[in-house]
Amino acid sequence: MTVIEDTPLAKKLGAFVALSTSDLSLLSGLHRRRKALVAGRDLVHQGQSDQIAYILAAGWVCSYKILPDGSRQIVDFQIPGDFLGLRSALLHTSDRSIESVTDIEVSEVLVRDLLNVFAQNLRLATAVLWAASRDEAMVVEHLVNIGRRSAVERMAHFLLELGSRLTLVGMGDKSGYTCPLTQYHLADALGLTAVHVNRVLRQLRENGLLTFRNGVVTFDNYQGLATLVDFDPTYLDQTGPLLK
Amino acid sequence: MTVIEDTPLAKKLGAFVALSTSDLSLLSGLHRRRKALVAGRDLVHQGQSDQIAYILAAGWVCSYKILPDGSRQIVDFQIPGDFLGLRSALLHTSDRSIESVTDIEVSEVLVRDLLNVFAQNLRLATAVLWAASRDEAMVVEHLVNIGRRSAVERMAHFLLELGSRLTLVGMGDKSGYTCPLTQYHLADALGLTAVHVNRVLRQLRENGLLTFRNGVVTFDNYQGLATLVDFDPTYLDQTGPLLK
Repeated sequence: MTVIEDTPLAKKLGAFVALSTSDLSLLSGLHRRRKALVAGRDLVHQGQSDQIAYILAAGWVCSYKILPDGSRQIVDFQIPGDFLGLRSALLHTSDRSIESVTDIEVSEVLVRDLLNVFAQNLRLATAVLWAASRDEAMVVEHLVNIGRRSAVERMAHFLLELGSRLTLVGMGDKSGYTCPLTQYHLADALGLTAVHVNRVLRQLRENGLLTFRNGVVTFDNYQGLATLVDFDPTYLDQTGPLLK
Repeated sequence: MTVIEDTPLAKKLGAFVALSTSDLSLLSGLHRRRKALVAGRDLVHQGQSDQIAYILAAGWVCSYKILPDGSRQIVDFQIPGDFLGLRSALLHTSDRSIESVTDIEVSEVLVRDLLNVFAQNLRLATAVLWAASRDEAMVVEHLVNIGRRSAVERMAHFLLELGSRLTLVGMGDKSGYTCPLTQYHLADALGLTAVHVNRVLRQLRENGLLTFRNGVVTFDNYQGLATLVDFDPTYLDQTGPLLK
């Protein structure tokens, strides 16, 4: 049995609030209905309306929107400890689809159960709202990325952001991380073509900043990369617990 | 004294949940500290950390991020009834700035007071979370706009979205609405130049779809415009109360 303190979600929320034993046991109650899914399947469909959210326990997923012409915009990737479809579950119908990038394990959460937990424990409610606010800050940063940054800057910013997020749940550090994303994922997230993605990655490698090869992102020069794109991770808000 | 049922916020939340007298009186308690600001001033600075949010009672604002090179990406505009900086207030520091587009009136809300209201009334908490989810769905749609749509489609989608939002709070309909935005606001929101904005608006007008002149958006052919960009307002989730 997994010790609850060690779940990625507890690690992540712990960056915001110092969690007590009773907080952790309420959190643990949310993890009851487990579900596994192989890579490349839709967990949630755009337009779905069943008011279920998920906590990602293992693996990577992406959330995306399909346009009428068939093109795809990836909104974000989720890593262990992230909520999936938390806010969409509050709308009548989900505004996006969620697909497994790797084999995944999730815990199903009924929105009703989550709201009951909120009513019992305002401290935990605040922590979950914090996580949702942080997710939205990332979507905003992706909007800035596509709206205002060059292709090289977009890629650098995106891979640095993933590095910071993975570090928070113990899956990466400033030397790099394991990354299952393909050039097609990167293209759909950054508004580039797959060919362009390859060119940009080659440029970053040749400049001695970053190597993405065989499923591993290696920061060859973390500080140089951060300087290139003025990476300011403040919006990820993971510098230490705000509530003691 | 304003009747609370008539505030834009009550109208908006009413689209999600049928509000009782006691719900409305709790809502009203949030409106205590009033503040007025003239057009063109920052209400919240990117990097600010005082954990205050606002409810916009009158006027328009925009939220934006400034990049190190001085360029600006507008994330969204807010209209009466919208929360300002609700999620940013949960982070250590605000991830964006908020500026008044017109003269505005806001009510200050301490995040602590808001969480206390949540604890007293889970129904109202759900309604506010719904509003926050809807705001995030809009940011996602803006990401899709900039990432995947042409300049004409972006403009059409953006002005249709504003129309739907304004309709919800009684400030517009399918014939059009009063709109204080300049070509610079539109440019910074849509990732276009001001010159490009003018060209796109002329094209929409010449095609008999839409006229934006003297601060008024007129839908000359609402259905034609909606068809042009496959506008599906489902993500705005305003078709009727989900909770009775």
